[in-house]
Amino acid sequence: MRGLLVGRMQPVHRGHIQVIERILDEVEEVIIGIGSAQVSHSIKDPFTAGERVMMITKALAENNVDASRYYVIPVQDIECNSIWVAHMEMLTPPFEHVYSGNPLVQRLFTEKGYQVTEPPLFNRKSYSGTEVRRRMLSGDKWEELVPQSVIKAINEIDGISRIKQLARREVSEV
Amino acid sequence: MRGLLVGRMQPVHRGHIQVIERILDEVEEVIIGIGSAQVSHSIKDPFTAGERVMMITKALAENNVDASRYYVIPVQDIECNSIWVAHMEMLTPPFEHVYSGNPLVQRLFTEKGYQVTEPPLFNRKSYSGTEVRRRMLSGDKWEELVPQSVIKAINEIDGISRIKQLARREVSEV
Amino acid sequence: MRGLLVGRMQPVHRGHIQVIERILDEVEEVIIGIGSAQVSHSIKDPFTAGERVMMITKALAENNVDASRYYVIPVQDIECNSIWVAHMEMLTPPFEHVYSGNPLVQRLFTEKGYQVTEPPLFNRKSYSGTEVRRRMLSGDKWEELVPQSVIKAINEIDGISRIKQLARREVSEV
Amino acid sequence: MRGLLVGRMQPVHRGHIQVIERILDEVEEVIIGIGSAQVSHSIKDPFTAGERVMMITKALAENNVDASRYYVIPVQDIECNSIWVAHMEMLTPPFEHVYSGNPLVQRLFTEKGYQVTEPPLFNRKSYSGTEVRRRMLSGDKWEELVPQSVIKAINEIDGISRIKQLARREVSEV
Amino acid sequence: MRGLLVGRMQPVHRGHIQVIERILDEVEEVIIGIGSAQVSHSIKDPFTAGERVMMITKALAENNVDASRYYVIPVQDIECNSIWVAHMEMLTPPFEHVYSGNPLVQRLFTEKGYQVTEPPLFNRKSYSGTEVRRRMLSGDKWEELVPQSVIKAINEIDGISRIKQLARREVSEV
Amino acid sequence: MRGLLVGRMQPVHRGHIQVIERILDEVEEVIIGIGSAQVSHSIKDPFTAGERVMMITKALAENNVDASRYYVIPVQDIECNSIWVAHMEMLTPPFEHVYSGNPLVQRLFTEKGYQVTEPPLFNRKSYSGTEVRRRMLSGDKWEELVPQSVIKAINEIDGISRIKQLARREVSEV
Repeated sequence: MRGLLVGRMQPVHRGHIQVIERILDEVEEVIIGIGSAQVSHSIKDPFTAGERVMMITKALAENNVDASRYYVIPVQDIECNSIWVAHMEMLTPPFEHVYSGNPLVQRLFTEKGYQVTEPPLFNRKSYSGTEVRRRMLSGDKWEELVPQSVIKAINEIDGISRIKQLARREVSEV
Repeated sequence: MRGLLVGRMQPVHRGHIQVIERILDEVEEVIIGIGSAQVSHSIKDPFTAGERVMMITKALAENNVDASRYYVIPVQDIECNSIWVAHMEMLTPPFEHVYSGNPLVQRLFTEKGYQVTEPPLFNRKSYSGTEVRRRMLSGDKWEELVPQSVIKAINEIDGISRIKQLARREVSEV
Repeated sequence: MRGLLVGRMQPVHRGHIQVIERILDEVEEVIIGIGSAQVSHSIKDPFTAGERVMMITKALAENNVDASRYYVIPVQDIECNSIWVAHMEMLTPPFEHVYSGNPLVQRLFTEKGYQVTEPPLFNRKSYSGTEVRRRMLSGDKWEELVPQSVIKAINEIDGISRIKQLARREVSEV
Repeated sequence: MRGLLVGRMQPVHRGHIQVIERILDEVEEVIIGIGSAQVSHSIKDPFTAGERVMMITKALAENNVDASRYYVIPVQDIECNSIWVAHMEMLTPPFEHVYSGNPLVQRLFTEKGYQVTEPPLFNRKSYSGTEVRRRMLSGDKWEELVPQSVIKAINEIDGISRIKQLARREVSEV
Repeated sequence: MRGLLVGRMQPVHRGHIQVIERILDEVEEVIIGIGSAQVSHSIKDPFTAGERVMMITKALAENNVDASRYYVIPVQDIECNSIWVAHMEMLTPPFEHVYSGNPLVQRLFTEKGYQVTEPPLFNRKSYSGTEVRRRMLSGDKWEELVPQSVIKAINEIDGISRIKQLARREVSEV
Repeated sequence: MRGLLVGRMQPVHRGHIQVIERILDEVEEVIIGIGSAQVSHSIKDPFTAGERVMMITKALAENNVDASRYYVIPVQDIECNSIWVAHMEMLTPPFEHVYSGNPLVQRLFTEKGYQVTEPPLFNRKSYSGTEVRRRMLSGDKWEELVPQSVIKAINEIDGISRIKQLARREVSEV
């Protein structure tokens, strides 16, 4: 059986790795959809799809997750909720089981006949993209929330400087 | 003469039927544009275009409105206000008179030379999509605000369960 | 049971009416999808979606088809074949049976579990959009191939002049 | 050397002219990108791209800026920040220097290797689109903030009536 | 009065300049729409919109055409013919007269009530984009067909090498 | 160093595996872009992006290629050639070297400063998607041209029946 997990992963953190490991206890292969693939360079979505693909791939390797058991696929948002499942099916190998904590995603897949489960989350308060980005902006220790390879990736693309610059206010509208 | 009425109809309610009946006192045929056709599965826009097409068609039949006197046409939003009128003209039979209470719609059609009238609204406080959706979510009596055939349609697609699930909060961002 | 018939209907001709009448012998309601709704003003696709909506509606009324038994819905093409069925489902009331002679449409609906039937066609050689447009261009008698109301509609929008102008060759590229 | 300045210019005001004149002290030619070209007819973005192209062209002529030293190019927004620079490069002559006070624009061009400078702003509090639009809505004197030719252009398109109508509240959702 | 001329201008040649000069004998200002702005890097459309904006601007300056009398605006194609006129109106200052030799463009503007004239063409056989591109590919003398400033622009962007590389056949599909 | 290889892979064949193995002799990691990701269900492009992602992943595993050394990323076509490189950069980890035999792809990456190499092709006449699809349609032996796991994948999705049905001619236009 193949499972699907979708997340924006802005950025990848330790919680993602734990969830994926747990899902791999239940299914043979997991498709990891990198959601909102088209957005980047905003405070809520600082990293490009490609940067996030690299983060998750490196982080799973760092944690010795068998690379033949997962697919990493960037998925752009589409405006039409009612065709989003078909859009996902177009981009991924066939799957039977969906892991999502998002009520909209749950509803859309349920209406199309998929089996949907709340993914097991770990240390939800800290292991969340919102918290990681908050720490990046405020100068708090974000590094402990993400795998080593993600720290390395973010440093290489000068990610902290990027998110801090994006948070500045514009002096005046032109 | 042919008139145009555009509404999101999320969902169709008794007010819509009354407005359409009144418009048909003034014009020979009315084009009913189902606005924001591309969106669905959100609290503000729970139903698909097709579901809304069915609701209005069935509700007009229930009220014995002559089916040869109206057209029901789903119309997707476009981002460019200044070409929206042309977009509407592409999808509909020719019309001369526009009924709309929305200032933007009024302005756009007026600038293109159309005759625009505020549609007669009935019992505005209750006969509004906002109020129907509020009642659906809170468990209040929404059924009295919509035609029988709309109740039936919403039940068939499990609509109350859909809107309630969409209102849940996500436990944690993935 | 509800059936779906999709056609470009460039323009509506007598064959369309006969097919729809025959389908209504088999199903309670038929959804008539006006395909390639976004294109117009070309030799292959001279008429807008709205013009075609009007043609089919008037022609069915002329033939006394019960207006409460069909839906007419313009459907724009999308580039992704694999999500086209979901796109159709978004815009229409639910249906179970698909009538199509197009191998791609047949395949797409079959893969999603729909029942698909070749529509009964009548006088295929003459009752075809290609033949009607050929006659329009060459000055042959196209009127006998379409219902009276379609002749009237095409005359009102100056349709023959349109298709003839579109067939002219450009003198030189600018 | 060629410079790039991007602004929504809703509407063009005296500050724009001053900035452009100052930029032309530094570079040989300036490309003036009219941002958010696809939006119009809203309180924040009342004017079409074409109306803004006319305003800036006329206002620069009024101020005797040499017409052979600037390009005016409407640029539509795209959702993907990470390809926005390439989108801009597609629509404009080559440039080396970017003038922008917007942190996102600064970041995007910096990451692609461009030289980016904060544009010199003049009388920031009054010479801002936000202030001009506020005055237009409230009936205050907006005319003193914009060049004569912009007053004339806005009057010709009945612009004040447009922005005031767009500010009305809808009576009831249809 | 303001006129509109639309052309792909792949590339700008002497015929364009002559047509524009002649149009400026008839109207006060001319809007020069650079058509198919989104395409480039193909044999039929080798140059980007920005490259073409630069070519026409420089070529008009070279021919001493008064820069305050024309607007150069890139216009992307849209799939819907029936809203193309509105799309053009969005991007340009208001105009009354359209110059086009293309039957589709003529028809679309005529249906919206515009006055349309065949533009005066000069030396049609040689002064055509098709002929210029043919010579570029075959190594024939293309330079005599275009203004000096266009030769310079094409050399700067290494345009001949680009069109020749694009004409190569792929060895094998990957 | 990281390399990029883009191909439609309709379907994956033995040539792809050999090319990728050879590229991995030169670079540490290879990004495999599945081109034209949005199209499927046509004779030229029968398989969905997701089906192709699965084929290449399984085929590389079958050939014992180290899964930590490659990324498989579906990439949709965009109409604008001049922003295609930026689109690719958005979706992928950073790369320095491009392998492509397509003149357009070569040109686009070269203009952006990338190092571009013709990929080593093997048995070009047989190991080509065109040849595999030709054999599938004609009933010839296509299986020997693709890895075992691709045969299995195509059988599971009933791929031969799909391509054969798509090749049928429509009886008559509706």
